[in-house]
Amino acid sequence: MKGNVLVGQSGGPTAVINSSLAGVFKTAMERGFSKVYGMRNGIQGFLDEQYVDLSDYIKNELDLELLKRTPSAFLGTCRYKLPEIHEDKAIYERIFELLDKLDIEVFIYIGGNDSMDTIRKLFDYSLLTGAKQKFVGCPKTIDNDLAITDHTPGFGSAAKYIATSTKEIICDAMGFSYKKKNVNIVEIMGRNAGWLTGSAALSRSEDCEGPDLIYLPEVPFSIEHFVDEVKKLLEQKDVVVAVVSEGIRTSEGKYVCEYATENATTDAFGHIQMSGTAAYLANVVKNELGCKTRAVELSTLQRAAAHLASRVDVDEAFSVGGATVKAADEGSSGVMVVIDRVSSDPYQSTTGVYDVHRIANDEKVVPRKWINKAGNYVTEEFLDYVRPLIQGYYQPMMVEGLPRHLSMNLKNYDWITSSK
Amino acid sequence: MKGNVLVGQSGGPTAVINSSLAGVFKTAMERGFSKVYGMRNGIQGFLDEQYVDLSDYIKNELDLELLKRTPSAFLGTCRYKLPEIHEDKAIYERIFELLDKLDIEVFIYIGGNDSMDTIRKLFDYSLLTGAKQKFVGCPKTIDNDLAITDHTPGFGSAAKYIATSTKEIICDAMGFSYKKKNVNIVEIMGRNAGWLTGSAALSRSEDCEGPDLIYLPEVPFSIEHFVDEVKKLLEQKDVVVAVVSEGIRTSEGKYVCEYATENATTDAFGHIQMSGTAAYLANVVKNELGCKTRAVELSTLQRAAAHLASRVDVDEAFSVGGATVKAADEGSSGVMVVIDRVSSDPYQSTTGVYDVHRIANDEKVVPRKWINKAGNYVTEEFLDYVRPLIQGYYQPMMVEGLPRHLSMNLKNYDWITSSK
Repeated sequence: MKGNVLVGQSGGPTAVINSSLAGVFKTAMERGFSKVYGMRNGIQGFLDEQYVDLSDYIKNELDLELLKRTPSAFLGTCRYKLPEIHEDKAIYERIFELLDKLDIEVFIYIGGNDSMDTIRKLFDYSLLTGAKQKFVGCPKTIDNDLAITDHTPGFGSAAKYIATSTKEIICDAMGFSYKKKNVNIVEIMGRNAGWLTGSAALSRSEDCEGPDLIYLPEVPFSIEHFVDEVKKLLEQKDVVVAVVSEGIRTSEGKYVCEYATENATTDAFGHIQMSGTAAYLANVVKNELGCKTRAVELSTLQRAAAHLASRVDVDEAFSVGGATVKAADEGSSGVMVVIDRVSSDPYQSTTGVYDVHRIANDEKVVPRKWINKAGNYVTEEFLDYVRPLIQGYYQPMMVEGLPRHLSMNLKNYDWITSSK
Repeated sequence: MKGNVLVGQSGGPTAVINSSLAGVFKTAMERGFSKVYGMRNGIQGFLDEQYVDLSDYIKNELDLELLKRTPSAFLGTCRYKLPEIHEDKAIYERIFELLDKLDIEVFIYIGGNDSMDTIRKLFDYSLLTGAKQKFVGCPKTIDNDLAITDHTPGFGSAAKYIATSTKEIICDAMGFSYKKKNVNIVEIMGRNAGWLTGSAALSRSEDCEGPDLIYLPEVPFSIEHFVDEVKKLLEQKDVVVAVVSEGIRTSEGKYVCEYATENATTDAFGHIQMSGTAAYLANVVKNELGCKTRAVELSTLQRAAAHLASRVDVDEAFSVGGATVKAADEGSSGVMVVIDRVSSDPYQSTTGVYDVHRIANDEKVVPRKWINKAGNYVTEEFLDYVRPLIQGYYQPMMVEGLPRHLSMNLKNYDWITSSK
């Protein structure tokens, strides 16, 4: 009789992080583990003994399918970095005491760089003490900045949402342009890695011109030069669409959004006004070139829009979740499951495992050769890499016109009191 | 042999304005009109003799289906108000000269209040001169602020997008809340009418708590009182979600977003920084209560997200388009097609026609009785009115992972040069 599995979610949520959770649950059940416990809010909640038995929530195949379609973190996440072992041994003793108490054999952590750091430290501690548990990381981040793995679950769905929204924003802007120039600036997530920002270029297709300019955080940004490029484009066309990463910095290393607040004073209540990157640049263009501008910040919907998830992404997230349990059950520990791309066309991938020490705290950015020379667009190679990851559609389960999610706080509808 | 139909689109685009265009085209063809001309950028482009023959773009049933799924205005729109007839008779002479030149029998204008004003004036002029053309308005606006009609095409899809996005934003915020309070403020379009803002409440369902607070432009807004309400909620819960209209005003009639720039100076380049309503309120809450805040502005995607259109809305937009041609063909002029609700449960609607003089320039706002006493939520009656309009799903036609649209500038893919 096998013991139990413990699984947690950590860091920023994605549209498919729960698909990985579903994969962990299903494979653990199939492989004969007794229970799957879920940490509430990652390791931070677990330290407060906050956990649930997942079978209380996933009771049938329909629940499992709903979980795969539920955005954000079903279990809740945290941003919590474990201290080094030599700094605070007590916290490790506490964790392993709880693991023993719950008869945990397998510890799965779904997350990005910081989460892999947690797996690394817990594994190292288990080596020091000879603890029996296996520790396996499950990759997740919309930013796609994890090393070794070809890409990360969560990225494909965010890229699909960004490309679709960019296409719709361009379509909207084009319809309005008669005898009026307008400049549209779209701001995309990704502080240091431009994978998501570059994905906006996927909108360029037979029926859409795509953005005119794309600025990734990998290349230093010049505000003056940007205004010049927009000005030149406005001499040839009426509608200009620029896509910028929230993380673009000038050559002095200063974030563009920081310029907005530099000289800013306060409102009537004495509050300093903050501004986003796109809002700031739209304002600069409006003032310098005198044309109509619009800033659109795609915001949290980039990581939460499960209604437009990529099927490839949902399926891979599910597979990767299952592969963590399989790896641990077959004896691996101190590893992260990775996705290996077998072929781009036709797209094929498999899962593998990799030493977590080689992955934790390493950040994968877009290679310079996948950005054009002028530093204002991505190359065809970049698009060939991303395109397979946004394919396919995962039909939401619609109830009363809206996508249904699995929720811990599900309320049963009170038919009697709400009838008229 | 019948003559020709001329159709134009005007004002802000919607996700389904092209479905009405498709309806106009199909019914005109079925009723034996010779050609359907489309004005480029409404009456403004038409005055410059900018028009197309729609059969050059809609060649088969597939094109028609793509057009129904294409957001924004296929023909382009304008914001152009005709002068009163006595102010500038020459412009009317010019328009009717062009109508005669193109053998136009039916003039259809798809739009909101200003567009119905155009229909009214052209009809009045035709009475004065005895011109043969029929003038019929086709309602369209996401704001749902047109009089007489039960609702307007475009509203249902925008409401569906807003409710879905609000649900996903709440889901995202909940996953992050462990031992950290956070306040999320979502900004929705609708300067004077709160129909769209109130629709965010549809997200409240068995699996989602919905927003905590909703502020419509119909009720005066107090910044101080708002901060108090958020503060009280934060004493009971960790995540607070407030939804505000872009048009909320204080009791002095000043837009909330105007407060942001009141004392603001400029950035390093001498530009005044503008701020949205949600961004401003998030900043106030952060400063006053010291908690983490996030502002999300749903922006143009509210009217452009055809990928999440409501089937009821797409179908009604199509029917209403067809009904304009039918009405004109049967002799009506100076009318707008309206939607009459036959029943809410089960939902049934029909089209009718109504004197455009009674509709133009009149703005329908949310009745005070459909907003709760505290002025911070909508009532069940409001939701019963909106809910039928967001039902059903109109499957996008996906090509390479993205929704395909019908485009005037369709490029045929160059298979040879782009192969490797």
